[in-house]
Amino acid sequence: MQRILSTELASHPYEKVLVEGWVHRIRRLKAVSFLIIRDAAGLAQVVVTDPAQLTAPEESVVSVTATVTPNEQAPNGVELTSPEIHVHAAVDVPLPFELHRPVLTAGLPAQLDHAALALRHPARRAALRISAAATAGFRAALEAQRFVEVHTPKIVESATESGANVFQLDYFGRPGYLAQSPQFYKQMMVGVFERVFEVGPVFRAENSDTARHLTQYTSLDAEMGFIADHRDVMAALTRTLAGMFGAITERTGFATPGVPAEIPAVHFAEALKIAGAPADEPDLAPAHERALGEWARREHGSEFVFVTGYPMRKRPFYTHPDPADPAYSNGFDLLFRGLEIVTGGQRLHRHADYVAALHAAGEPLAAYRGYLDAFRYGMPPHGGWAIGLERLVARLTGAANVREVTAFPRDPHRLAP
Amino acid sequence: MQRILSTELASHPYEKVLVEGWVHRIRRLKAVSFLIIRDAAGLAQVVVTDPAQLTAPEESVVSVTATVTPNEQAPNGVELTSPEIHVHAAVDVPLPFELHRPVLTAGLPAQLDHAALALRHPARRAALRISAAATAGFRAALEAQRFVEVHTPKIVESATESGANVFQLDYFGRPGYLAQSPQFYKQMMVGVFERVFEVGPVFRAENSDTARHLTQYTSLDAEMGFIADHRDVMAALTRTLAGMFGAITERTGFATPGVPAEIPAVHFAEALKIAGAPADEPDLAPAHERALGEWARREHGSEFVFVTGYPMRKRPFYTHPDPADPAYSNGFDLLFRGLEIVTGGQRLHRHADYVAALHAAGEPLAAYRGYLDAFRYGMPPHGGWAIGLERLVARLTGAANVREVTAFPRDPHRLAP
Repeated sequence: MQRILSTELASHPYEKVLVEGWVHRIRRLKAVSFLIIRDAAGLAQVVVTDPAQLTAPEESVVSVTATVTPNEQAPNGVELTSPEIHVHAAVDVPLPFELHRPVLTAGLPAQLDHAALALRHPARRAALRISAAATAGFRAALEAQRFVEVHTPKIVESATESGANVFQLDYFGRPGYLAQSPQFYKQMMVGVFERVFEVGPVFRAENSDTARHLTQYTSLDAEMGFIADHRDVMAALTRTLAGMFGAITERTGFATPGVPAEIPAVHFAEALKIAGAPADEPDLAPAHERALGEWARREHGSEFVFVTGYPMRKRPFYTHPDPADPAYSNGFDLLFRGLEIVTGGQRLHRHADYVAALHAAGEPLAAYRGYLDAFRYGMPPHGGWAIGLERLVARLTGAANVREVTAFPRDPHRLAP
Repeated sequence: MQRILSTELASHPYEKVLVEGWVHRIRRLKAVSFLIIRDAAGLAQVVVTDPAQLTAPEESVVSVTATVTPNEQAPNGVELTSPEIHVHAAVDVPLPFELHRPVLTAGLPAQLDHAALALRHPARRAALRISAAATAGFRAALEAQRFVEVHTPKIVESATESGANVFQLDYFGRPGYLAQSPQFYKQMMVGVFERVFEVGPVFRAENSDTARHLTQYTSLDAEMGFIADHRDVMAALTRTLAGMFGAITERTGFATPGVPAEIPAVHFAEALKIAGAPADEPDLAPAHERALGEWARREHGSEFVFVTGYPMRKRPFYTHPDPADPAYSNGFDLLFRGLEIVTGGQRLHRHADYVAALHAAGEPLAAYRGYLDAFRYGMPPHGGWAIGLERLVARLTGAANVREVTAFPRDPHRLAP
């Protein structure tokens, strides 16, 4: 018999069907018991009159052949009666926590220790589906804008970008490093396809155990050539975010806030004033970001706000300066509900500018040889961005910690499971 | 003025347009010169009558404002006349090799040393577009079959699966390892979504410098629950390959061979006979795979052939044995044009079977704690596969070396660019 999903039962009244899944819950009443089966789509209620049939405890995997019986009291208006139950895999140990409560009562460390089990909880599962939908929406929106997907190296020769925060590995007897971002590679690929994107893991050896840092996270990267300046990048990012949020709602039903056709943008100097920060601050602290988020909602009815023109001294060497005031950059951050979830900007594109910038930073040119090749052989004005997927999904779902929306998070103290 | 792409010129006869791109080639004739511009879409021919306008050599980036003039002799039936040329970035050094020849004449090492330049060649670019299309087709085919995308850790605690071939790194003072595959994680996620896929980098510290090995490659992984046996996995894989090949042809125009609705399958014991190998061979050598590829084409008119029932002793511990003959497995390989491009099979799903298999392999259970959790708490019969993207694309395009279809390949001797 062909298996059907729990959500399809209502279309098969009075038929004999095959349902398969996990024993989500067993409710024993006096005259009858209810066996709730969880499958990929949802839940199904099985009416069991013979307690001898209830041999498999919660989380066991079963096949149930039974009759679909309409019952207005049951979830989805149907239940399964006269079941035959086959056990694929019986659980024979106590569960470390229960999965059938609306909210997992176990603390986050216990959930993470038993991730293979905790991720089965509908709330944890829903966050990962939102993550998958966001990623699919990202790709679809970019492909509609002529971006081409690339895959770039995750092991690199030099600890460039910011030497302190990279993982070092043994590469056949010499040092190698895990890439902190695909930044250099996506720029090089602008020379090939003009517009590229990559969805992939990035690695940060940052020893900070906060609710918004991971040592591996999923970066949604894009880079585009032939721009006038960073505002073209911001416009492409805005379209892409709208596509992502649309995909989330379409695929998961999760209500997402509207993405304005033009997201409000404030210059860094203005942002400091709004946040009540001293005028000589070089960066925005989390409290400043929160203040800006509140301002954007209050003044513009927007959950998003761009901060542009970050000071050059706080941005990486490849950042393009603001031609009108070279102390400021054509770099931007995007805040969503008062948290930075995207960093982007226009990059330098002339070889001589790179040489000057690396000299000024005291960096050896040799470490950047392959990267500089792209600029030596002709590159257009270009820019791009990187979205932190886990931060975005945490902010969207209201999760207090990025670990709640990550399948198997990595942090300085956690390398398993 | 809004930029248009080279391929759109024919739709704008006699209009003044803006085209941007790289100087692909300059051809100086007696009375006139031709400037060939390369953009993301193709090539455009610009007629230059004043040699003083040709200041930017090949690979420089330019903007050209000019009039679209029909000319049957020109590529695509149009050329650009009366141009104004603006140089975004001028190349002021000789190129290490020419890009405008139909085939790159530089050897592969020179191409890889200057990857940022070599990848701009239309042939190299085309292979990467095929790669992107294959990946998009993979995802679309799987999403149509209810698979959910996941992102899993690339840094792991134990050198499991096969200890010798893993990269070791320093994880905050203790050892960590780069994941050789998402195998354990995708299996755990079957417990969450039933069907999952992942597109991501995998790492092999194998010191073999061949035309088909890389130390990092892109693995197209899928895993599915509630199967009868490996044949359900093979059927899902066949549908997925058809989707991938369809996407390649649709997106790039590259002609792909048909994927049979049912790919011929031979048992390992039979495969040895066909390949003329001794009956006690534990695995197929490359020459055997080639012989099987020829046999499949000759006997079945198929570029693909499944080999099923590999001996258990050559498959990993999580492989499900053939219930009819436990010396053989429910594991399979898929050969495409005589090369193995996919490995897959049914996996064990009961906790006790894992404990027994790990004991038999002499492996400590503690190293597999988080993984075994999934089976302790109920898992359905399941299986899956992993496709090596670069191998598939090399075999499809006829590239002799996987490095030709990889943007920035990594091998034991190459860690840059």
